[in-house]
Amino acid sequence: MDLKDKIRVIEGFPKEGISFKDVTTILKDKQAFRYAVDKIAENLKNKDIDLVVGPEARGFLFGAPVAYAIDAGFVPVRKAGKLPCDTLKTSYDLEYGKDVLEIHKDAVTPGTRVAIVDDLLATGGTLKSVIKLVEQLGGNVVTANFVIELTDLKGRKKLDNYDVFSLIQYNI
Amino acid sequence: MDLKDKIRVIEGFPKEGISFKDVTTILKDKQAFRYAVDKIAENLKNKDIDLVVGPEARGFLFGAPVAYAIDAGFVPVRKAGKLPCDTLKTSYDLEYGKDVLEIHKDAVTPGTRVAIVDDLLATGGTLKSVIKLVEQLGGNVVTANFVIELTDLKGRKKLDNYDVFSLIQYNI
Repeated sequence: MDLKDKIRVIEGFPKEGISFKDVTTILKDKQAFRYAVDKIAENLKNKDIDLVVGPEARGFLFGAPVAYAIDAGFVPVRKAGKLPCDTLKTSYDLEYGKDVLEIHKDAVTPGTRVAIVDDLLATGGTLKSVIKLVEQLGGNVVTANFVIELTDLKGRKKLDNYDVFSLIQYNI
Repeated sequence: MDLKDKIRVIEGFPKEGISFKDVTTILKDKQAFRYAVDKIAENLKNKDIDLVVGPEARGFLFGAPVAYAIDAGFVPVRKAGKLPCDTLKTSYDLEYGKDVLEIHKDAVTPGTRVAIVDDLLATGGTLKSVIKLVEQLGGNVVTANFVIELTDLKGRKKLDNYDVFSLIQYNI
């Protein structure tokens, strides 16, 4: 399956100049959704992943089923004020904007083998924040997996010491 | 497994008087997470579900893996301004607050058999809005499934004509 054919590209969302990659057209297509989840799960095979960590909200859409597929737990990284217990916080720059992310302090125990899953790797700002949170809790970030990678934004370069895997690449 | 043992209850979140049921302690426990997803998937068996629909953001955490488990597609219902294409909108009352929900107009085609999945059934306000959106697009809401039901809030009563299923019940 050419998964790229299943992405809907919308020019000018959420603001002018952005060519938005809409993954809802993958999600609603059961074959494409299964294919995407299985391809990431396949990449995680033999990596002894204990936990999948995914950032709110689109990271949940792929991260949770990947966790289920590989028989791991799932830990949500959420925006400020959403998690009810003690959290670690970090602020980060988005492709467009700035935000705060949080993780429950007891969500990751030292030595846990973690795979990060999100829909999109752009500048890598979100990913760096998620890695920081996981590592501050003593987790071992084994790999970061994405449905889409915007290669021209060079997020991968920020992450030289990490294994980065993506299913679909776009120049822009 | 007694799934209720895996829920963390936090008093006074997000505001005084609320006894918040934290499902992140299910998600991070791979056995509990698998058990919850499989129990909902089992309830959906033989119901010929084409699509799982789940509201942002905690509905994604269970809805997406349930969709994967039963080999269906997944459609996110999102808060205002998050979906990039043409949407249907509805406003709804929360247990605490008010909000707008949207669905892509092309996400559900007429006659599609839909299961709604969310983490929590409280007053049923969110669920009624999701049902309304799905039905306005011609979808057939076959069942609504929840990890937790707050029985005293009587959300189920609002939904007399619908099949409602929950894994865990709390009086408060």
